[in-house]
Amino acid sequence: MRILVLGGDGYLGWPTAMYLSMRGHDVHIVDNYWRRKVHAEAGSDSLVPIAQNLVTRAAAWREVTGRTITITEGDLTDWSLMEMVFGDFCPETIIHYGEIPSAPYSMMDQRRSVLTQHNNVVSTLNVLWAMRRFTDGAHLVKLGTMGEYGTPNIEIEEGWLEIEHKGRKERVLFPKRPGSFYHLSKVHDSNNIEFACRIWGIRATDLNQGVVYGIETEETRLDPRLATRFDYDDVWGTALNRFCVQAVIGHPLTVYGGGGQTRGYLNILDTLRCVELASLNPAEPGTLRVLNQFTEQYSINGLAELVQRAGKTYGLEVEIQHLANPRVELEEHFYKASHSKLIDLGLVPHLLSETLIEHVFESIQRHSDRVLTSFIEPSTTWLGGYRSRSASRVAIA
Amino acid sequence: MRILVLGGDGYLGWPTAMYLSMRGHDVHIVDNYWRRKVHAEAGSDSLVPIAQNLVTRAAAWREVTGRTITITEGDLTDWSLMEMVFGDFCPETIIHYGEIPSAPYSMMDQRRSVLTQHNNVVSTLNVLWAMRRFTDGAHLVKLGTMGEYGTPNIEIEEGWLEIEHKGRKERVLFPKRPGSFYHLSKVHDSNNIEFACRIWGIRATDLNQGVVYGIETEETRLDPRLATRFDYDDVWGTALNRFCVQAVIGHPLTVYGGGGQTRGYLNILDTLRCVELASLNPAEPGTLRVLNQFTEQYSINGLAELVQRAGKTYGLEVEIQHLANPRVELEEHFYKASHSKLIDLGLVPHLLSETLIEHVFESIQRHSDRVLTSFIEPSTTWLGGYRSRSASRVAIA
Repeated sequence: MRILVLGGDGYLGWPTAMYLSMRGHDVHIVDNYWRRKVHAEAGSDSLVPIAQNLVTRAAAWREVTGRTITITEGDLTDWSLMEMVFGDFCPETIIHYGEIPSAPYSMMDQRRSVLTQHNNVVSTLNVLWAMRRFTDGAHLVKLGTMGEYGTPNIEIEEGWLEIEHKGRKERVLFPKRPGSFYHLSKVHDSNNIEFACRIWGIRATDLNQGVVYGIETEETRLDPRLATRFDYDDVWGTALNRFCVQAVIGHPLTVYGGGGQTRGYLNILDTLRCVELASLNPAEPGTLRVLNQFTEQYSINGLAELVQRAGKTYGLEVEIQHLANPRVELEEHFYKASHSKLIDLGLVPHLLSETLIEHVFESIQRHSDRVLTSFIEPSTTWLGGYRSRSASRVAIA
Repeated sequence: MRILVLGGDGYLGWPTAMYLSMRGHDVHIVDNYWRRKVHAEAGSDSLVPIAQNLVTRAAAWREVTGRTITITEGDLTDWSLMEMVFGDFCPETIIHYGEIPSAPYSMMDQRRSVLTQHNNVVSTLNVLWAMRRFTDGAHLVKLGTMGEYGTPNIEIEEGWLEIEHKGRKERVLFPKRPGSFYHLSKVHDSNNIEFACRIWGIRATDLNQGVVYGIETEETRLDPRLATRFDYDDVWGTALNRFCVQAVIGHPLTVYGGGGQTRGYLNILDTLRCVELASLNPAEPGTLRVLNQFTEQYSINGLAELVQRAGKTYGLEVEIQHLANPRVELEEHFYKASHSKLIDLGLVPHLLSETLIEHVFESIQRHSDRVLTSFIEPSTTWLGGYRSRSASRVAIA
């Protein structure tokens, strides 16, 4: 299958590209290195060193496996680039990771909020127009987020909801109430994609993904040059990954507020398998299929305690620290989200266990001298925006 | 009250500015003349000649009424302009018409689709950030559209819906299923505004407006230099206004498809009153209030027949022509939408009557030599995009 991986230089994009290439697909990556640039600008970096660019990555991949991944370095908001890529490569499946993925970044200030929404909305609009113009029945596999739903007081279904109102019935997109301008950008995308499916007959799968954890995949382990990035800072890192780094370097785990916030989580290995399953079992033409892509629910407190216990086994003394919550969000709430459709397609989850966390500790420990501790505590609040690092210490509750 | 009218050079913006100025408010307009430029580019124009720019408009207003409207010529997507306007004027109410408002324009091609969403989403994001930074409790009155809802099989409530699902309850934004990239841009706005209200405590009223008709207001009648624009072409004109022009020049009324499409309509005089009522009765802090702003429902066939009958009385022979529908939309559907909240606030509707239509005929007749007939029939289809005017004739069904 000819598969286009948009955002294929990222934490998940690069492992996805290798995973699919390994399984015989013809993979082409597009990425503009924006994530690398914004880290360079901020002075932060991936914990795990990664190859210099996609050229060196693809060369190492070829050397190690004999397989070819082709690449285009460029920006999805640039229509002329999209014309070239879609016209030349003629993808059958488009896996779209090519968005700015950080809630705190989008809340820093006006500029970054606008940049996030502009980049994400325009990238996805361009993908839809390019599919319409250059493909015949291609399938879009779009990475959304469980964060689009927020924390409603009703069970979260997979994308659609049957409602009855005053004796009449309708099937609607599940009502969303996201918690940042970043999450909103993905809601905008979902609405645009639903429209393109309905009007143009495009087929699409929206993968509303939970929080991904993990540092290695079968393919990244083949060679250090194939490693994927691993972010642990307050802007680009995600909960469990950040906690593991904090545990290893002896920093208290930074729980925001009360810690009752509950979300869905999944292993990076399951991300790859889910994206594969979605690609191999495409949505029907004219259909927006939504799959909730996570395997387990945890509260932040539950997660912190898990890391603390795993740390004890591993020989680490792990403290848990409750910081004043930089976000505006419910800290105690109902949370129940369906996630059976990917299981139905064949997903066998890698569930979170203490053993696995110890493996993550090990991988982190190999690079622990690279941790920049000034990027651990939150520098952005939902009410105050971004404060420079020197003034960014949030009082310990 | 210090009232900022964004998009104050437009069909509704300019009459709104005068209406509020006449009633003693301190009015400041921002507009970038984009609508004038895009007409100049296409070769189309307002039926009614309008003053050269906001400087001449404001000067005429002063000369005729002795009142002052101040202006800033500039673009809402330009943050430095927003800082200046909000910092200097310190608005108490922001009436936000400043968006690209055409469904066909947004469906022409990739460029115009992206331009519409970029312009509208970024303008509104900038308004939200400017309110957060420069105002204390200001009230946003945002012009949305009934088109955001689409044509659901359930009754459309005013913005919010109480739902029960598996025994639990939640209040959600009414699920939307809009019919163009333009309408989607307003859905994106609504979602962004709801978030800003919830997180930052901003107060906002989203006016989901129906299709506006009418050519004059009390203030535009004071002097020809105070006239507002009136679009009758396939891209910028709206249903009833277009039909009235077609009737006057002897062109068959262009009904798209079967004509069972039903929407809400309102008189331009009611738009002004609704916006005033919303401004005088602001939403509570932290609240997104949604008001459905229309006074009557009509099907396109019903509207065409009304114009036909009014034409007969007026001495015009009016034919009705069913064109192949350039849009993708339901032509027969359930439609029932609540619209009681503005009545509760004090709106006394100007209902559509044949008498009124004859007044519109009269006003149009004074300018009928300005009608460009090549802009009557649709040049853009939802499935084929834009075709140049010479090849744009849609077959008569």
